[in-house]
Amino acid sequence: MAHLRIALAQTNPVVGDLSANSAKLLDWTRQAAAGGAHLAVFTEMFVTGYPVEDLALRSSFVDASLATLEQAAARLAEEGFGELPVVVGYLDRADLAPRVGRPKGAPLNAAALLHRGRVVIRTAKHHLQNYGVFDEYRYFVRGDRLPVFRLHGVDVAIAVCEDLWQEGGPVAVVAQAGAGLLVVPNASPYEREKDDVRLELVARRAREAGCALAYVNQVGGQDDLVFDGDSIVVDADGELVARAAQFREELLLVDLDLPAADRVADPVADRVADREPGRTAYDAGDGSTITVERSVLSSEPVTIGSPLTPSIAPRLDDLAEVYSALVLAVRDYVAKNGFTSAILALSGGIDSALTATIASDAIGPERVHVVMMPSRHSSEHSVIDAEELVRRQGVNPHLVPINGIVTAFEKEMELTGLAAENLQARVRGQVLMGLSNEHGHLVLTTGNKSELATGYSTLYGDSAGGFAPIKDVPKTMVWELSRWRNAHTDGWFRMDVARPIPEHSITKEPSAELRPDQCDTDSLPPYEVLDRLLDDYVEKDLGPADLIAAGHDPGLVARVIRLVDLAEHKRRQYPPGPKITAKNFGRDRRVPITNRWREST
Amino acid sequence: MAHLRIALAQTNPVVGDLSANSAKLLDWTRQAAAGGAHLAVFTEMFVTGYPVEDLALRSSFVDASLATLEQAAARLAEEGFGELPVVVGYLDRADLAPRVGRPKGAPLNAAALLHRGRVVIRTAKHHLQNYGVFDEYRYFVRGDRLPVFRLHGVDVAIAVCEDLWQEGGPVAVVAQAGAGLLVVPNASPYEREKDDVRLELVARRAREAGCALAYVNQVGGQDDLVFDGDSIVVDADGELVARAAQFREELLLVDLDLPAADRVADPVADRVADREPGRTAYDAGDGSTITVERSVLSSEPVTIGSPLTPSIAPRLDDLAEVYSALVLAVRDYVAKNGFTSAILALSGGIDSALTATIASDAIGPERVHVVMMPSRHSSEHSVIDAEELVRRQGVNPHLVPINGIVTAFEKEMELTGLAAENLQARVRGQVLMGLSNEHGHLVLTTGNKSELATGYSTLYGDSAGGFAPIKDVPKTMVWELSRWRNAHTDGWFRMDVARPIPEHSITKEPSAELRPDQCDTDSLPPYEVLDRLLDDYVEKDLGPADLIAAGHDPGLVARVIRLVDLAEHKRRQYPPGPKITAKNFGRDRRVPITNRWREST
Repeated sequence: MAHLRIALAQTNPVVGDLSANSAKLLDWTRQAAAGGAHLAVFTEMFVTGYPVEDLALRSSFVDASLATLEQAAARLAEEGFGELPVVVGYLDRADLAPRVGRPKGAPLNAAALLHRGRVVIRTAKHHLQNYGVFDEYRYFVRGDRLPVFRLHGVDVAIAVCEDLWQEGGPVAVVAQAGAGLLVVPNASPYEREKDDVRLELVARRAREAGCALAYVNQVGGQDDLVFDGDSIVVDADGELVARAAQFREELLLVDLDLPAADRVADPVADRVADREPGRTAYDAGDGSTITVERSVLSSEPVTIGSPLTPSIAPRLDDLAEVYSALVLAVRDYVAKNGFTSAILALSGGIDSALTATIASDAIGPERVHVVMMPSRHSSEHSVIDAEELVRRQGVNPHLVPINGIVTAFEKEMELTGLAAENLQARVRGQVLMGLSNEHGHLVLTTGNKSELATGYSTLYGDSAGGFAPIKDVPKTMVWELSRWRNAHTDGWFRMDVARPIPEHSITKEPSAELRPDQCDTDSLPPYEVLDRLLDDYVEKDLGPADLIAAGHDPGLVARVIRLVDLAEHKRRQYPPGPKITAKNFGRDRRVPITNRWREST
Repeated sequence: MAHLRIALAQTNPVVGDLSANSAKLLDWTRQAAAGGAHLAVFTEMFVTGYPVEDLALRSSFVDASLATLEQAAARLAEEGFGELPVVVGYLDRADLAPRVGRPKGAPLNAAALLHRGRVVIRTAKHHLQNYGVFDEYRYFVRGDRLPVFRLHGVDVAIAVCEDLWQEGGPVAVVAQAGAGLLVVPNASPYEREKDDVRLELVARRAREAGCALAYVNQVGGQDDLVFDGDSIVVDADGELVARAAQFREELLLVDLDLPAADRVADPVADRVADREPGRTAYDAGDGSTITVERSVLSSEPVTIGSPLTPSIAPRLDDLAEVYSALVLAVRDYVAKNGFTSAILALSGGIDSALTATIASDAIGPERVHVVMMPSRHSSEHSVIDAEELVRRQGVNPHLVPINGIVTAFEKEMELTGLAAENLQARVRGQVLMGLSNEHGHLVLTTGNKSELATGYSTLYGDSAGGFAPIKDVPKTMVWELSRWRNAHTDGWFRMDVARPIPEHSITKEPSAELRPDQCDTDSLPPYEVLDRLLDDYVEKDLGPADLIAAGHDPGLVARVIRLVDLAEHKRRQYPPGPKITAKNFGRDRRVPITNRWREST
């Protein structure tokens, strides 16, 4: 039996800020060394951040990734950490000629091992994710290796992210190659109820590979994705050994008892097999061949003087997870895009109340501006509820009455019905944008997923803004999250206020207040009914026959499908916002605008 | 030597309207039969339209495609066209179990041969396009066959679209399989200067395959893509035999002298080889195996009584192509989305003048509404130029002064500088949206690509709208197209007006007129300089070092890169518009909004 202390660097990189990411690599490696780690593992494409989308196709960007990696390796050694091996994801390129169908420059979603000032191992993701929110066939060519390096007498293999999820490929040959530990840098975004799937998968792959497995995940917001951390270490039986927190950066140190390498530290054995030092080709079970590349850093075992107590972070429940995801997404969107404050319209309704609360928890209420814009149709309680929220949270209130502006428009144009309702919403959107342009606030859009699905929003009106925190949250969950937040607080929220949301905003009947005595249920079914139907149509992709078989009202099915299909043009112009469900609009669900497909019931 | 008359059905399907597409299949097959054709070939996924995006992942949609195909085959026979074989693209599914990484339902981008009321051959695209505007790994699994059917003594092979473009796969085994004709349904979108590449490719593949090749392309607009038709027939030497028009539907009838099949019409020969009737497996050169599936429709040769004169449509020049693409895109976006009219802001400047002209040519000036919205900064000539355009084209003019509205906003909020300029632009956007909501017009956005690239537009202001006809047209080309249109007219334009654009709109210095005496060159370099730089940065993806090496001013390079990078959030909320360049914003160029990458010069 041999021992290793490994450090899982569950970090929040910034896409495109290679020098900041590199500085963090050094800083966290320093901490890992101070903690006595023998190996530090960072996340997928940590050097560049993930996902970088078309930046992967720019040769100057790949050059920068490669240069940053080399410089980081040298810098680590200069600072005295050269003996601590570091596994880190970066962007590389394969030496392949241009060809139609091959991504320009043949980029690789790569991982390196840095040691003694040099990049000593390079490998790349074999299974490219090309479903859901991922488009990796657009960006990368496949890797074809499994590196196995001996560290203090333990054989450690490296694979990247999706190679865990799909059958065959590098992970499938780990058992044959005989590793004692498999380390896997990841950038796996949050979605509800994905959690147990991840642990089950990691445990299953560990058992298949016959070795311990360290799964290191990115944390942080990146446009419409939120990475949740939740890094996991399991033993060779798939039993959970350690787990990092969700939605927070964490350097997780874990002591592992691992099998000593059962072969002599001599690549000659392999050389006999295929005449190439340290290399053996395996059939990877998916029609491809994976080359195992062995190397030796050190064969001397180490002892661990004072073993650490294994750290297993407590799991968040469903609503805590979602709320945390939204807070982190807003915080990172604001910070990473260089904003220092946010602004939103506060109507007194629950959507804007929850959005304001998320913003206050994300960046602090002193940096949140709320604008009350009463019209002739605003009820008295709207203003009271909005003012009550301001009082509870301490956000910055602004009052801009819109009646005069609406009247000025009406003098020039005759608008009736929906056009007149939209006018009010657009005047409000325009007031927000004006204040944003004048003062540099990020405009937060307050629409929820049920609204976005059915098109119950006004283009350039309530849909105006730079980031939409609850766009993937169904209305029924808006209420659940509001109740949850009123019952909880958390040390990492920037607003230390209990019950920040006025109860009346949660309990009153929802209304857009765009005409006298308007209620959402005038034109929509109750949200409990609507959200179940939307979930089945949008997220589960059921056709009308299956929706009716699932118990939905046939008339409602026809009406809601039509609403959803006709609103695609609005969704295309909606700001980004954090994905929390299995299928968000935009990255996950991509349908044509010009689309005559109307499923008949 | 044998003979065939083939009909290339260069058609404009509607995505999702399976019954309309099916009706067109019948109608055009009738015309092909009336023209004496022995074989009709329709376009890629004609039954569903192309691209269908995530609709491919819905089982009810695949079911509908399959049912429509079977019904179409039966209907053709009922109507008396059962003896005319029809090749048509449709959406199918493979019989593959679900697996992580495999598109849900295993859809196939398929092509069928319909004959005597039945679907007698099914095949599918092998090379999936996953670059540029395409994401086919997301939607499809690979086909693995090359069907070869004998028709009047000629062996005819079928391949689909991208299989022509990439090396290896079905097209690579045509020569070995020994076909006399290869027919290829396509849906290949227009982009500038792609034209000759296509003919060269088709000619090269014909020579490699040693047989004639009929390339049948879709025509029509679909969101941000415009399919240009331009179907091509070459002989086995790669010499052009016939070519259809660009940007128009056309049934192209072509008489071909083809080699009689050199093998007996008896699958027994193959049966000996691999014990499966009519099937032979070939190494396809790209690591895959392609199964050639032979069948026989008829071995009797035909004679052609009065041969047709080969039809080779004249080629459009560069500007005629682009202008035609824009007109077709607008016409189809309006019609396929159920609009009957369009509205746009007419400023007197060249962008809105060209957009109005395209709209008039697309749907007729009587269905085009233009709104003049002078502000305190509008120059006198702006109004004169706008009125002159109305007079020349006969579009419907509206006048909505915005001073009163702007003043009403200013009473409630203090806005300065850019925020005040944006206010005017947003009031105009809001007026357009109000008129659109009230009267059902499609709002056309008038911004050009140079503006979109640098972010010189106002979110929800001049960028408001449902479709943006010139969003992929650089400013310098806006002038070129305007001059071109003033010098040309065309029978398929719906406005029969010479010189529809006032000369002063073309020749005057460009200005947004958002502050007194403003000129675009106050804040931007001359457009000739800017557009060359944008082309190198955006379309060619050059980094700053390469841009400077290419002769661009270093200070300007740094400034323009920064402008382009910081405007990504605006582009995400811009309406769709037709792609005409090698890299449009949106589908072709996908970069993160949250992106700290700033290339240093």
